[in-house]
Amino acid sequence: MLSTHHSYLELLLSRYQNIRQQTLSICAPLTPEDTVMQPMVDVSPPKWHMGHTTWFFETFILAPHVKGYRLFHSQYAFLFNSYYNSMGSRVARSDRGTLSRPPLQDILEYRRHVDQWMEKALQNEELLKNEEITAAIELGLQHEQQHQELLVTDIKYILGCNPLMPIYHEQQNSVLGEFSGKQPQNTWLTIPEGIYTIGYQGEGFCFDNELNPHKVLLPAFEASSCTVTNGEYMAFIDDGGYSDFRYWMDEGWALVQQHQWQAPLYWFQQEGDWYHFTLHGVEKVKENEPVTHISFYEAQAYANWSGHRLLTEFEWEVLAQLHASPSAKGNFLESGKLQPISASFSENAPKTAHLLGNTWEWTNSAYLPYPGYSAAPGALGEYNGKFMVNQMVLRGGSCATPESHIRCTYRNFFHADKRWQFTGIRLAKK
Amino acid sequence: MLSTHHSYLELLLSRYQNIRQQTLSICAPLTPEDTVMQPMVDVSPPKWHMGHTTWFFETFILAPHVKGYRLFHSQYAFLFNSYYNSMGSRVARSDRGTLSRPPLQDILEYRRHVDQWMEKALQNEELLKNEEITAAIELGLQHEQQHQELLVTDIKYILGCNPLMPIYHEQQNSVLGEFSGKQPQNTWLTIPEGIYTIGYQGEGFCFDNELNPHKVLLPAFEASSCTVTNGEYMAFIDDGGYSDFRYWMDEGWALVQQHQWQAPLYWFQQEGDWYHFTLHGVEKVKENEPVTHISFYEAQAYANWSGHRLLTEFEWEVLAQLHASPSAKGNFLESGKLQPISASFSENAPKTAHLLGNTWEWTNSAYLPYPGYSAAPGALGEYNGKFMVNQMVLRGGSCATPESHIRCTYRNFFHADKRWQFTGIRLAKK
Amino acid sequence: MLSTHHSYLELLLSRYQNIRQQTLSICAPLTPEDTVMQPMVDVSPPKWHMGHTTWFFETFILAPHVKGYRLFHSQYAFLFNSYYNSMGSRVARSDRGTLSRPPLQDILEYRRHVDQWMEKALQNEELLKNEEITAAIELGLQHEQQHQELLVTDIKYILGCNPLMPIYHEQQNSVLGEFSGKQPQNTWLTIPEGIYTIGYQGEGFCFDNELNPHKVLLPAFEASSCTVTNGEYMAFIDDGGYSDFRYWMDEGWALVQQHQWQAPLYWFQQEGDWYHFTLHGVEKVKENEPVTHISFYEAQAYANWSGHRLLTEFEWEVLAQLHASPSAKGNFLESGKLQPISASFSENAPKTAHLLGNTWEWTNSAYLPYPGYSAAPGALGEYNGKFMVNQMVLRGGSCATPESHIRCTYRNFFHADKRWQFTGIRLAKK
Amino acid sequence: MLSTHHSYLELLLSRYQNIRQQTLSICAPLTPEDTVMQPMVDVSPPKWHMGHTTWFFETFILAPHVKGYRLFHSQYAFLFNSYYNSMGSRVARSDRGTLSRPPLQDILEYRRHVDQWMEKALQNEELLKNEEITAAIELGLQHEQQHQELLVTDIKYILGCNPLMPIYHEQQNSVLGEFSGKQPQNTWLTIPEGIYTIGYQGEGFCFDNELNPHKVLLPAFEASSCTVTNGEYMAFIDDGGYSDFRYWMDEGWALVQQHQWQAPLYWFQQEGDWYHFTLHGVEKVKENEPVTHISFYEAQAYANWSGHRLLTEFEWEVLAQLHASPSAKGNFLESGKLQPISASFSENAPKTAHLLGNTWEWTNSAYLPYPGYSAAPGALGEYNGKFMVNQMVLRGGSCATPESHIRCTYRNFFHADKRWQFTGIRLAKK
Repeated sequence: MLSTHHSYLELLLSRYQNIRQQTLSICAPLTPEDTVMQPMVDVSPPKWHMGHTTWFFETFILAPHVKGYRLFHSQYAFLFNSYYNSMGSRVARSDRGTLSRPPLQDILEYRRHVDQWMEKALQNEELLKNEEITAAIELGLQHEQQHQELLVTDIKYILGCNPLMPIYHEQQNSVLGEFSGKQPQNTWLTIPEGIYTIGYQGEGFCFDNELNPHKVLLPAFEASSCTVTNGEYMAFIDDGGYSDFRYWMDEGWALVQQHQWQAPLYWFQQEGDWYHFTLHGVEKVKENEPVTHISFYEAQAYANWSGHRLLTEFEWEVLAQLHASPSAKGNFLESGKLQPISASFSENAPKTAHLLGNTWEWTNSAYLPYPGYSAAPGALGEYNGKFMVNQMVLRGGSCATPESHIRCTYRNFFHADKRWQFTGIRLAKK
Repeated sequence: MLSTHHSYLELLLSRYQNIRQQTLSICAPLTPEDTVMQPMVDVSPPKWHMGHTTWFFETFILAPHVKGYRLFHSQYAFLFNSYYNSMGSRVARSDRGTLSRPPLQDILEYRRHVDQWMEKALQNEELLKNEEITAAIELGLQHEQQHQELLVTDIKYILGCNPLMPIYHEQQNSVLGEFSGKQPQNTWLTIPEGIYTIGYQGEGFCFDNELNPHKVLLPAFEASSCTVTNGEYMAFIDDGGYSDFRYWMDEGWALVQQHQWQAPLYWFQQEGDWYHFTLHGVEKVKENEPVTHISFYEAQAYANWSGHRLLTEFEWEVLAQLHASPSAKGNFLESGKLQPISASFSENAPKTAHLLGNTWEWTNSAYLPYPGYSAAPGALGEYNGKFMVNQMVLRGGSCATPESHIRCTYRNFFHADKRWQFTGIRLAKK
Repeated sequence: MLSTHHSYLELLLSRYQNIRQQTLSICAPLTPEDTVMQPMVDVSPPKWHMGHTTWFFETFILAPHVKGYRLFHSQYAFLFNSYYNSMGSRVARSDRGTLSRPPLQDILEYRRHVDQWMEKALQNEELLKNEEITAAIELGLQHEQQHQELLVTDIKYILGCNPLMPIYHEQQNSVLGEFSGKQPQNTWLTIPEGIYTIGYQGEGFCFDNELNPHKVLLPAFEASSCTVTNGEYMAFIDDGGYSDFRYWMDEGWALVQQHQWQAPLYWFQQEGDWYHFTLHGVEKVKENEPVTHISFYEAQAYANWSGHRLLTEFEWEVLAQLHASPSAKGNFLESGKLQPISASFSENAPKTAHLLGNTWEWTNSAYLPYPGYSAAPGALGEYNGKFMVNQMVLRGGSCATPESHIRCTYRNFFHADKRWQFTGIRLAKK
Repeated sequence: MLSTHHSYLELLLSRYQNIRQQTLSICAPLTPEDTVMQPMVDVSPPKWHMGHTTWFFETFILAPHVKGYRLFHSQYAFLFNSYYNSMGSRVARSDRGTLSRPPLQDILEYRRHVDQWMEKALQNEELLKNEEITAAIELGLQHEQQHQELLVTDIKYILGCNPLMPIYHEQQNSVLGEFSGKQPQNTWLTIPEGIYTIGYQGEGFCFDNELNPHKVLLPAFEASSCTVTNGEYMAFIDDGGYSDFRYWMDEGWALVQQHQWQAPLYWFQQEGDWYHFTLHGVEKVKENEPVTHISFYEAQAYANWSGHRLLTEFEWEVLAQLHASPSAKGNFLESGKLQPISASFSENAPKTAHLLGNTWEWTNSAYLPYPGYSAAPGALGEYNGKFMVNQMVLRGGSCATPESHIRCTYRNFFHADKRWQFTGIRLAKK
């Protein structure tokens, strides 16, 4: 344990530098104007993400624990606090897009300033002996990785609702190997009835919502090896899925009518063909790629229509315990594709494709505390617990998730109507 | 089984008559104007309840199955359909309060008309051999009982938001025995870890959402024998519970600020004392009576503040399996009190007070399908499944629930912000 | 002057009794439930009108001036104040429809109570010497007549948005003479340039907004002798009037699209024919009757389409000075038709039809103060002045206006989007 | 006339260049992020203003009339159309702030491109013989000047709602002469009763809404020589002006309560003193400077409180005919102050200060057509007429109006609740 902690500390500085650099890399293709956009309330401006992740380190590490540190700017706490009521008043979430200042260069300067102090701190052995501090640093890194995923999806939304549909980056040559040309046959994996342990049991970092590991009794079930493809989803559309209330939750059906949903977000039809906006531009929807950018309501309606259902988060976790292949090539943020890829890319993980990476998978579990859950005291305790109502759990990470950030016990959560994340569908047999 | 079914059929007519009469009794104290009110979208006008429950029997029994039956009025289907998309278009829920016609006497005539036909049908042995029909009749009776509870709570809301605060009925002399004068000490009941069976296993009626019985593994837990009292809740208020975000879910805190919640619904303060509107008029809040008319958010915040938590619906059901005393005097619709009463009234059920009746108890479980759940085909299948998102489960029934309608496996559900039902709080130890 | 005042006082009691009775007559065909409806915010429940007009006499006459008078009910001031900030707090306008109590019989009792006291007061010569008091009584009567018109149009709206489209009364045999069978030819009346006097100059009652008489210089203009008919308006509809933005004010065009307006309020099409809801039931739209229930935006768009324009309120008043035939049979509330009639009914006023009565006529004048306007001090001064922004002036009264209430100088005003009054169109040549 | 036209054409090129350059000068202090902000729906992003004014020349001059011209970008018409329904679909006004692309440099390139073509066109004598074309060019220049004023006020709003309250420019040394140190005494100017001519009668450019000149008869009136000062307005505030409904229009009073207005826009109180945000930073409110950034409702309430009233637009125009000193130094956009200045600066115009420039003056006239008004045919006819409802007229220009753009007959118009323009108050005696 001690030696583990020792090597952990040795890596902390380089991890800090890599993660902080990753944020800048994601923002590199943007114009200054892109960085202040908030075209819907769920989206935060990229500049705000850059400032907020920096504010986290300033507020929870530098200001309280590092001698001689002075705040970069007295009003940044007001501008870059997200939802920590403990940390004082803040700009209303819906007003983040009204802030053109501080200008981008000031934010970059703010990052450099905090990074210099943090890098010094990360070499201060005395400081790192305080496990409360290292825990807060670790949380800051994990927090920044979360914002990296949001940055990617927020940028996609910002560009995707611009009538010019600008290209974010050129399509990457795949580092994931060649596409085999045919979609693997979906198979059903059987999981026997049993008592399984759910929740994080390792020694590394996890969020408080993954604790405490506990036993659940699951009936036997079957899960599909692949997530639903665009081609399969088109069959649902063609069969009138969006105009038949019988497949839908009542609240979902109301949204379908209110927003005139007829396909996943970013899809549009032209002369009979479906196209969609991706971060490398508009392209024709490929049938063998996984469907993404669908709400929970759409996932659930599709499952209903197909005669199946979604997995619970417990079933999903057990499935991943048994079948997620950590050595299989995944499709994460680092691949640079920023778009889910066909299951054909993962032939060496024959049984299940992309349990981790590619698309988040909506489960039919509401986001609720595990037995014995208790939030950490203080501001950092505001992290997870206060959102445990009216949201659904997603599992597995996506093509926008940093690879080192995801694990089988990871619990993501969104409201059932959200579509701008890379979300997908894995089916269970009824 | 045959003989069971036989005696069930013998009772059906008198049950039909009693239940139908109960609806009229509930509405008897109302003025015609009261019967058309919809002061908020959740409330339906009493006249609409009377018409809608009648429409149910006309639509699902008489029209399809009884020869010679003609619709009472061709447009009533449009007026009195609630949410059955299968049954065609309908008046928008929010517009129910804009309908002064048909006049009350027409609705009463409609009820008489349908009742005469139904009473004949209930004596038609041939018809009752069709179990699909008897199932629909049973569902119609249970459905009407559900609307009886809503009638009581909707009437309370209609009168309670009138500045004149009119009295619905005089306070009933208790048929529940004399109040002992002191609140019993709350005790903690310990439930051991174990595998328990959840869901309805009897032979009588239950809703589809209570099926299928299935095993769950529960860790050991402790539950309070009594629900939280007004006095205890006042301590939460006095301690600043409504102005400290730390106790609240994020969405709950937003509501507290938006609606300026400072106490349960119907409470108001006058010269330092708390009063509340009840169906027998305004009275001072009694400290030893259970707190009611609180949202899930308030229940959860109270639990947080007190250092405890709410039970899950599975814990609640196991607690009720072990401790609900079916022979204990309950406080149901039939008692006529229409207000929760002190736990002192239930001394012969020493361990737990009012698990059934008195107030619904918010659980910390989201309303989700049980394993293997599948909705019935056709319109009647729209009953439960399509609401299984964004709602929380309540258990146990209230002082407005018909006694024959409730059971330990019954799953009620409301959105977390609703306060106009008779809702209360039972605590578990963390 | 003295003798005039003397005979005025003699008539006051009978006028009071007649006007008060008229309100009850208008409400006689209603069910109790009809009397509490508020299907849109502009509509007030008939019971509220009955209470509010009574509250006016209680508040401004009985309570301050009549010895021994005690308020009928301490909370009625809160319930039945409309917008007099000076008179304390009140039920929000949009919540008037949430009040089922006091029950109808209490309101009728309230009216009887106040009427008895008022009738005594109206025989108290001492009291009537105080001109401030008689002025307030007169204002109360005029005020009640205004509410009679609103009662008719509110009742029409309440019944008209009920899917059953109930009949308010049987069609009246015309007391206005026989219909000649053909629509008179519209002619253009020429008014020469000149300096005209605008505003009330008589000795009887008028509202403060009709004072002070003052001179205006008008260029010569031509006005149509008849208002626009349904047949003419259908030509506008058939010519795509509702789908061509060029005819519309910018804000009007936004409303057309938002509400999908395609015809006047209460019109609907069935198998190619236009029908409309009237107070005597649904009937086919008659081409030679005046179009009514149109917003200012529609009036203005129609005028634009036809190559003409609306009159200003000054032009209208001069036209009426020269051409309104006070002896001509009009179509007012008292005729009992409650629907505008064809111009053919007014042959003995050959030049202009129905300048007074039939339909209010939208002018292209905003509602603004006359030179030297000054509101009365105190609560009664809140009557007119505070609405002098964002409303358009209408002139001439309608089939729902009491005949003794209207005159050529009368200035009515509504927001440009309102359609539930009996509004129509008279054209001027550009 | 011909020679006038000749010299007019000679000046056209340099006017074009100066006006186009002025737009760039106004935007020069902005960051790229500033140029895409839309913090409220009335504000347009500066980049949009830059694009839209350019689109005007491209659409109405270059594309239809200049041989060989090709559109700079096929989608710019969609992006930069404002409200010309005739010109096809467009980005919704409320979504202008969601567009980060095209990037600023593209817009600047767009301006250069169009300017090069326009400059060539402005030297093409053949083309300029077509008076329809020169009229459209002139309209384009006037249109760009209008947007310059909006640019200044929109920029002020964008920066003013940023918590950092950034400075737009350093305060200008006055080119308007020295401040004399004391506020001149307000005096009342008497205008005799008479028949006056209203509307533009010159040979230069005017908008269609200033035509046709026509006679009005005005009663005698008195007008104040100075507009209301901050000091005077503070007396209104101190006297409870914002909390006494009696001074307010009904709709104004509702806004005061809804938005909690307690002072003009941009004012805030600190330790008992009033400060306000200006384009040269936050400063203490100076008592002798004119109050600005008030809605019509506030102007009207102030007038009421002070026992006076606002002028009508006709009174204002006659006052300006008699007393506006065209030679007096004004305070326009070109002064670079971008803030109204004290009346002391205009001593050589002894009778009236700043009828032109400094602040727009709310009149009590609704924006309506003059007699005989008729909109131009085609898209350019959409300019003014379709806004002639629900807006109030303002007169005289402000410190953000280009000097060559304003004249005594100029009719500006805004909704009564708008506060972000430089608006002020001139009183008339009742």
